[in-house]
Amino acid sequence: MGSTVLYMSMSVDGFIAGPNETDENGLGDGGDRLHEWVFPPEGGVNNRVIDEFMSTGAVVAGRGTFEPADGWHGDHHDGVPIWVLSRRPAPEWAGSMHSVTYTNDIHAAFRDARSAAGEKDVLVHGASTAQRAISAGLLDELEIHLIPVLLGEGRRLFEHLGAEQRQLERLRVLPGEGGVTHLRYRIR
Amino acid sequence: MGSTVLYMSMSVDGFIAGPNETDENGLGDGGDRLHEWVFPPEGGVNNRVIDEFMSTGAVVAGRGTFEPADGWHGDHHDGVPIWVLSRRPAPEWAGSMHSVTYTNDIHAAFRDARSAAGEKDVLVHGASTAQRAISAGLLDELEIHLIPVLLGEGRRLFEHLGAEQRQLERLRVLPGEGGVTHLRYRIR
Repeated sequence: MGSTVLYMSMSVDGFIAGPNETDENGLGDGGDRLHEWVFPPEGGVNNRVIDEFMSTGAVVAGRGTFEPADGWHGDHHDGVPIWVLSRRPAPEWAGSMHSVTYTNDIHAAFRDARSAAGEKDVLVHGASTAQRAISAGLLDELEIHLIPVLLGEGRRLFEHLGAEQRQLERLRVLPGEGGVTHLRYRIR
Repeated sequence: MGSTVLYMSMSVDGFIAGPNETDENGLGDGGDRLHEWVFPPEGGVNNRVIDEFMSTGAVVAGRGTFEPADGWHGDHHDGVPIWVLSRRPAPEWAGSMHSVTYTNDIHAAFRDARSAAGEKDVLVHGASTAQRAISAGLLDELEIHLIPVLLGEGRRLFEHLGAEQRQLERLRVLPGEGGVTHLRYRIR
């Protein structure tokens, strides 16, 4: 079986988006800075990490990640199935994508995504999805792309986890090009 | 001239102390976890980093760091001078330490500490001191000891910085023993 792995770009001060997020400003003010290492990818280390998450066998993402990205037109990569966590039903355009399943049942989403991925990992994406998955004990690993910037304000990756202390095992540290550091942890 | 360098142990989710800090529980619930790599130090990489901050030429710390540590008995290391940022005057026990200067003027504290340190770096310590120093443009570098744990709640290192985006230059990544990762950045 593969692992469920959160892949997120985060500023050194813990933000995954800048302030003032809107539909037209999906990453918030200045949030583009966090994804410069991907668009376009440069360097062997960064490309290796991109190749990894583009080799996963299924995707679990929150509605807030999926919908502003136009649902990746139903194909994040290689046509792998996508589970979207949402309290609302799918909008018509997303409901017609046959690779996409809307659900508010995070346990079912992770179970079905694991099953679909088989030996491959499951790519998990989105801050609230991460928080729910960690709290529910469904997330196996974190891959944080630590971006050399202080955003000061915005949306944090880690919030609402309660006071339970969770030990991590560092699996890998990859200093990427452009100052991004790829940190991989297993949640014990 | 040396640099002013913040040295802080921080959890992967951004906390430098656990919840429920009190005088008797100075690191908050579970906050001891963040300092296990120092007491006792183990491993060549961790000891190298400890040697570095114990070779600085002056210390600037907040009252909230200094006083619960009993002012390090007036000697953090090698008798170097210590500036304590505080809105209140020094308590009697601290006022009698001739290596210690209480002030609420952060500019004066950093100027005098730099001057005292000469060619050596200035060790900066404490979350609110860090926030004030970053906002005032007085901090040159960050050395974050990233601890493989999620605390969930507590006191964050990075808060109240406002929405100004500050670029960092990654100077060094040292994977230390026990899963701690030492990340060094210059603030541009």
